[in-house]
Amino acid sequence: MFTDTTVRAFLDQLASNAPTPGGGSVAALTGALGAGLISMVCNLTIGKEKFKDVEADVKEILAQSERLRSRLMELIDADVAAYGKLSAAYKLPRATDEEKKARTAAIQTALLDATAVPVSIAEACSQVIDLCTPAADKGNVGAVSDVGVAVLLAEAGLRSADLNVMINLSAIKDQTFVANTRARVDILRAGKSELKEKLVKEVEAKL
Amino acid sequence: MFTDTTVRAFLDQLASNAPTPGGGSVAALTGALGAGLISMVCNLTIGKEKFKDVEADVKEILAQSERLRSRLMELIDADVAAYGKLSAAYKLPRATDEEKKARTAAIQTALLDATAVPVSIAEACSQVIDLCTPAADKGNVGAVSDVGVAVLLAEAGLRSADLNVMINLSAIKDQTFVANTRARVDILRAGKSELKEKLVKEVEAKL
Repeated sequence: MFTDTTVRAFLDQLASNAPTPGGGSVAALTGALGAGLISMVCNLTIGKEKFKDVEADVKEILAQSERLRSRLMELIDADVAAYGKLSAAYKLPRATDEEKKARTAAIQTALLDATAVPVSIAEACSQVIDLCTPAADKGNVGAVSDVGVAVLLAEAGLRSADLNVMINLSAIKDQTFVANTRARVDILRAGKSELKEKLVKEVEAKL
Repeated sequence: MFTDTTVRAFLDQLASNAPTPGGGSVAALTGALGAGLISMVCNLTIGKEKFKDVEADVKEILAQSERLRSRLMELIDADVAAYGKLSAAYKLPRATDEEKKARTAAIQTALLDATAVPVSIAEACSQVIDLCTPAADKGNVGAVSDVGVAVLLAEAGLRSADLNVMINLSAIKDQTFVANTRARVDILRAGKSELKEKLVKEVEAKL
């Protein structure tokens, strides 16, 4: 699993001509880094006398950010697995009409799975963005720049996931699936870039 | 060094209340992921018959992206080291006027180093963004979504580095240094967010 390789090995493998990890895994890792920063801000807040009044709220934010970080870490490897299946389907034989038909069906099935992963990454990143506003309001103000970094990363992860959704949708024949997936990701993205800019401004004002 | 820990351990340590890694290291890692994706796109282009005409150009892009990836990987750990020095300076004794004076001087010196690191991260991320346009033009179109992810990440890394510059500048007393650094980072950021949006649109049109 790529989460068990070193940061250096992950980057080396990414930079190589090996098919994985690719943009989908990187989107998930970026979201996980955003979630991790929110957790850090919460952990730098909890247990401190001057933040006692908001401690219960911050613990709740931490529970959410840790859940999302864990989910996004799973999705780093899930994207690798889905890409592997898709790649295997493309390599199926296509000498006869029957083989061609079976190969096309296998590719279409693998594409649905390969799309589901970046949709899940987009969903988790979108939720990380939503956590950033309460984290900036209630978290230790000494770490507020980290909330700014978190929202920048979670938004970049969301949009990166969307590019990976799009590239898969462009090859999918089921137009109902395509339309439904597009609509779902549009909802996940709605207002998030504006929210990011608003929050970065608020963070800058506190620096 | 954090680049030699696993991705999972890096994220666990990030999420904890340990002072490092923090937002600066994460900004460098995000930029390194962007550079790594550009290298991947180059490596998926080089050696292929149909991209023979642009091979020399793509090799040049790869040399640059690998140089920047290497630099940004160093900066992940450099940020940790600079933060360590700053943290140590804040912990110096301040019982006497002389101690107070020495401590203030040590903090101011450490702040200059702690600022230099995110400025370097911003510089490298800015250069990664500049590589994305030729990579999208000349790289394997089958991997163009990865160029889109690269530019989203490099721009988020650039802005994240800037937040880390700002938080240090807010504590620095030397106003000439503050003004010069602000001006330098403004130059590094100039036009980059617009370039990112333009390039993502171009990538989307190719999907």
